[in-house]
Amino acid sequence: MNKRQFGYAALTASALTAAAIAPAIASSLGGPLELADEGTFFVGGQVVRSEYPGTPNAVVGGAGAGSITINQMYVHYRIPKVVSAPPIVMVHGSGHTGVTYETTPDGREGWATYFARKGFPVYVVDHAGRGRSGFNPTPINRARAQSDAKSIPDIPLPTRERAWQSFHFGATYPNLYPGSRFPGEAIDQYFSQLVPNAEVTLGETGTETVAALVALLDRIGPAIVIVHSQSGGYGLDLVRQRTDKIRALVDVEGSCGPLSADDVAKQFTKVPMLAVWGDNTVGASGPNSDGRRNNCAATIGAIRTAGGSAKFLLLPEAGIKGNTHMMMMDKNNLEIADLLIAWLAEVGARK
Amino acid sequence: MNKRQFGYAALTASALTAAAIAPAIASSLGGPLELADEGTFFVGGQVVRSEYPGTPNAVVGGAGAGSITINQMYVHYRIPKVVSAPPIVMVHGSGHTGVTYETTPDGREGWATYFARKGFPVYVVDHAGRGRSGFNPTPINRARAQSDAKSIPDIPLPTRERAWQSFHFGATYPNLYPGSRFPGEAIDQYFSQLVPNAEVTLGETGTETVAALVALLDRIGPAIVIVHSQSGGYGLDLVRQRTDKIRALVDVEGSCGPLSADDVAKQFTKVPMLAVWGDNTVGASGPNSDGRRNNCAATIGAIRTAGGSAKFLLLPEAGIKGNTHMMMMDKNNLEIADLLIAWLAEVGARK
Repeated sequence: MNKRQFGYAALTASALTAAAIAPAIASSLGGPLELADEGTFFVGGQVVRSEYPGTPNAVVGGAGAGSITINQMYVHYRIPKVVSAPPIVMVHGSGHTGVTYETTPDGREGWATYFARKGFPVYVVDHAGRGRSGFNPTPINRARAQSDAKSIPDIPLPTRERAWQSFHFGATYPNLYPGSRFPGEAIDQYFSQLVPNAEVTLGETGTETVAALVALLDRIGPAIVIVHSQSGGYGLDLVRQRTDKIRALVDVEGSCGPLSADDVAKQFTKVPMLAVWGDNTVGASGPNSDGRRNNCAATIGAIRTAGGSAKFLLLPEAGIKGNTHMMMMDKNNLEIADLLIAWLAEVGARK
Repeated sequence: MNKRQFGYAALTASALTAAAIAPAIASSLGGPLELADEGTFFVGGQVVRSEYPGTPNAVVGGAGAGSITINQMYVHYRIPKVVSAPPIVMVHGSGHTGVTYETTPDGREGWATYFARKGFPVYVVDHAGRGRSGFNPTPINRARAQSDAKSIPDIPLPTRERAWQSFHFGATYPNLYPGSRFPGEAIDQYFSQLVPNAEVTLGETGTETVAALVALLDRIGPAIVIVHSQSGGYGLDLVRQRTDKIRALVDVEGSCGPLSADDVAKQFTKVPMLAVWGDNTVGASGPNSDGRRNNCAATIGAIRTAGGSAKFLLLPEAGIKGNTHMMMMDKNNLEIADLLIAWLAEVGARK
């Protein structure tokens, strides 16, 4: 079966499972991973009362309503045996979770373990309300209980067709751009990692994740932060709120503002910033194209003019062609990682 | 602030973050973790067309409807440098994700890394529709679009009050049973890991996870399987569908049937089975109490009578008191893990 051809037809589980992916016990890593520590914790969040936590929730001698935790953020850390670089926080974009930075869809090493093997303590998060950071089912359950369909939040999950264009895999699903570095043979694995943006159930979308990222920096101390796409703006807010705790900001095809002159002068001249863009964004549709990219170029220019350390890196201009919005899983993802590490060294954030 | 006393009041993010948890770069592990490989992949799932994938999803020259992947299951694997035991699959219960088996709420080592350090290749999953295995937002978005509130799925998230009783932390939240081994000082961290059972959006709840577990065993080969609570029944279905691929089944306070005499004779005499139960379940409220426990004792008895290798382990009867439904994160969680490993050796499933 040609995996690029199944349009709308439902596949059997076995067909999807049979996609070209990593062997079970394999070498997805480029070498052994020796960790001093590895584990998970949560940051941020509040305890609130929910009148509609779903069924069953009745307690003995009580009703179904009760206390739930919302807005918390899941963090997975990998601390290498030999630490030779600052901590690095990896934040995903819309429709994704921290899986963005794990094993690539075609079973190669992702940035999370690669940076750990390069000496960085790595912290991968799931946005508040998404993935292993639970969402709040209350507005959904309440809408049902009160027959108030209009109050149901709109919960987006990127379709393949939409993602294909927005993430610059190709002009129309399922055809890749010529020379694309995306692992097209593993698109079933890739699309398996997309999740609904269930943070819409939390209220002020994004605010909770920024608050949790602030809590994370307060806990682990100064760190490099990589943001991607939707979380580009979160990275900017983080610089505003914790200027002294960001060793460098790497913004992968995310929003770069616009920033006020005051923001630039007071904060962004103090945090080295790299904006990285892939190929095929010029004239592309969707949010990750000309408007955002030109904005990034302008922001980087403004920071430089103000005396800050900032770089706009359009990969095809640097001779690296075919990268997509998901460059952390493209075929040359470790080459891109090496570029980031070289830039971190340049700006003094590697040590 | 006494963390056990905040009932319904909302906490600030900083208050919750300040809970007693692991330091940032710390020793949650009991020793270094040397891995030959570590990473993630998905199993199972189908590609389906969704008419209501949420906004924005319009493609250029097209509408918002399109293809999405549902029913897939996230798998996180850790392969130790020196493998000395069969693969082990760890499956969580209701309201949880694979975080169940990761670092404990109070920042100690969980079963996932402990078993890896004992030589087992470890595979931790998130049920289909939950956590990093995305759910299907279509029924929710459709209900909104069609003003059909009745069709909204009921999406349960355990409240603290309900969980407190069902998981045998204590008779009433937030008071622990005397002598409880649950890390009560870290309840904010524990409750942060609870997520809604969003698999209700998939259709036949549970079926998808069993199908994905079958796909996982077909991929990695014969394995030990640990199931917990809600997934007890999934473990039984797995034995029915892949008898030859289960080296042993460990059922932690999960359903044990009832099994038909035919099931016992044909399948369950071929798979060593251990049913483990904690303390304070006798006369307790909720699903994890007398009915289920007695059922487990009866099933284990039936398998033994039929000549199979099965054991019913009620921890307090074995002199280990104070364990809760979440024994994989109780203070003596590694003592329990050692008991499991000793039993696996006894039944020949350790090598």
